[in-house]
Amino acid sequence: MKNINIWLDQIQNDYKAAVSVDCVIFGYDDQNLKILLSKCDMPPFENQFSLLGDIVHPNETTDEAAYRVLVERTGISNIYLEQVQAFSAPNRHPLGRVITISYYSLIQIDQTFLDHVAAHPDLILKSVNEVHTLAFDHKLIMDTCLTKLQKNLREHPLGFKLLPSRFTLLQLQNLYESVLGITLDKRNFRRKMNTLGILKESGEIESDVPHRPAKYYYFDETAYHDRVELGFSFGF
Amino acid sequence: MKNINIWLDQIQNDYKAAVSVDCVIFGYDDQNLKILLSKCDMPPFENQFSLLGDIVHPNETTDEAAYRVLVERTGISNIYLEQVQAFSAPNRHPLGRVITISYYSLIQIDQTFLDHVAAHPDLILKSVNEVHTLAFDHKLIMDTCLTKLQKNLREHPLGFKLLPSRFTLLQLQNLYESVLGITLDKRNFRRKMNTLGILKESGEIESDVPHRPAKYYYFDETAYHDRVELGFSFGF
Repeated sequence: MKNINIWLDQIQNDYKAAVSVDCVIFGYDDQNLKILLSKCDMPPFENQFSLLGDIVHPNETTDEAAYRVLVERTGISNIYLEQVQAFSAPNRHPLGRVITISYYSLIQIDQTFLDHVAAHPDLILKSVNEVHTLAFDHKLIMDTCLTKLQKNLREHPLGFKLLPSRFTLLQLQNLYESVLGITLDKRNFRRKMNTLGILKESGEIESDVPHRPAKYYYFDETAYHDRVELGFSFGF
Repeated sequence: MKNINIWLDQIQNDYKAAVSVDCVIFGYDDQNLKILLSKCDMPPFENQFSLLGDIVHPNETTDEAAYRVLVERTGISNIYLEQVQAFSAPNRHPLGRVITISYYSLIQIDQTFLDHVAAHPDLILKSVNEVHTLAFDHKLIMDTCLTKLQKNLREHPLGFKLLPSRFTLLQLQNLYESVLGITLDKRNFRRKMNTLGILKESGEIESDVPHRPAKYYYFDETAYHDRVELGFSFGF
């Protein structure tokens, strides 16, 4: 076993690294899965985009650091946040050894959020499938978080966090098709949602649409929790 | 945005931490899920047990560090290893700020492994359900990794990594019951395994047993991969 003085040296001097958090912030705008990015001004990545992140401060956990970044940069509190994975290739950062812990979060792209992005020229909202390169290893981090989101979306009622509180069945189906990259049969999708019993009619219908107005639904969290106890899966 | 000199200071000086890996090494001995622990000699945790871990070295990734710890401490290479989560409470380590990345791994408890443990007095193999306290935050890390193992065991054919290459259906059922903490109906379990089509008879049977000798099976990885494409779940 290692001598305690070796431990002391390694922990307090020799083997120190910086630890950061990087947040993959996903939103959905009724058409595409979007990601919030920041303009990067660190050489050699000037004019590229990067994920939103920061160094973890001495008195906070990585979860707290990720939450701080989200609140500071998006203006939204109470965001869904999930830790995904550490990325630690020795040369991933040009300024020195930085090990980063990645998170993904899900936000609703409403007018308040769009106004916030418009007011901050360093921020940009891009379609995930149009992001081909990012600064650092952030493209790899984005792809890893997207895979995790897709997996979780099949197992947990996460999709509702990307939609307004009231939505039509078509909006919900479009969300799953867009994020999972699959095509779902409309009738089967509606039957499955009906069987799951986790959606409730809000009593409202669409207005000012050229087709027959669709009903608005909301996600019934209580019904979902009752279902979970019995074993639950979207089964796509 | 942050000035590059602030980044430099934070990454190279002010906000540095040590980063470690901690490995939750699970095995199964036909009765219980076991965990490999190490005697801890770091104050104030002397005479307690801890997970096997080390500080991440400057030129390795956290995956490489975890693999190094496993090979050095267990003598086994080619071990299944999965990253689970970062633990980063500011005061979790008595020697300073240490953020740890946790991993779990699955090993087969064969005679070679038992001999290795016996030859290293700092190592001990304990039943998971008899571990009530550990040094540092290692009990929390063990519990978190156990939850992840249980989840993955329901979705992936991981259980076979804990068994010898040839096993009886009773051994397989005992493994699931023990690790998941559930009781399975024998007839349903056998029917389900039959339906999944991922087990093949090895042609051998038990010898020297007081009951009717059971057939030995092996896990058919090719059949499993064919099944995965069609969508696969143990569905327990």
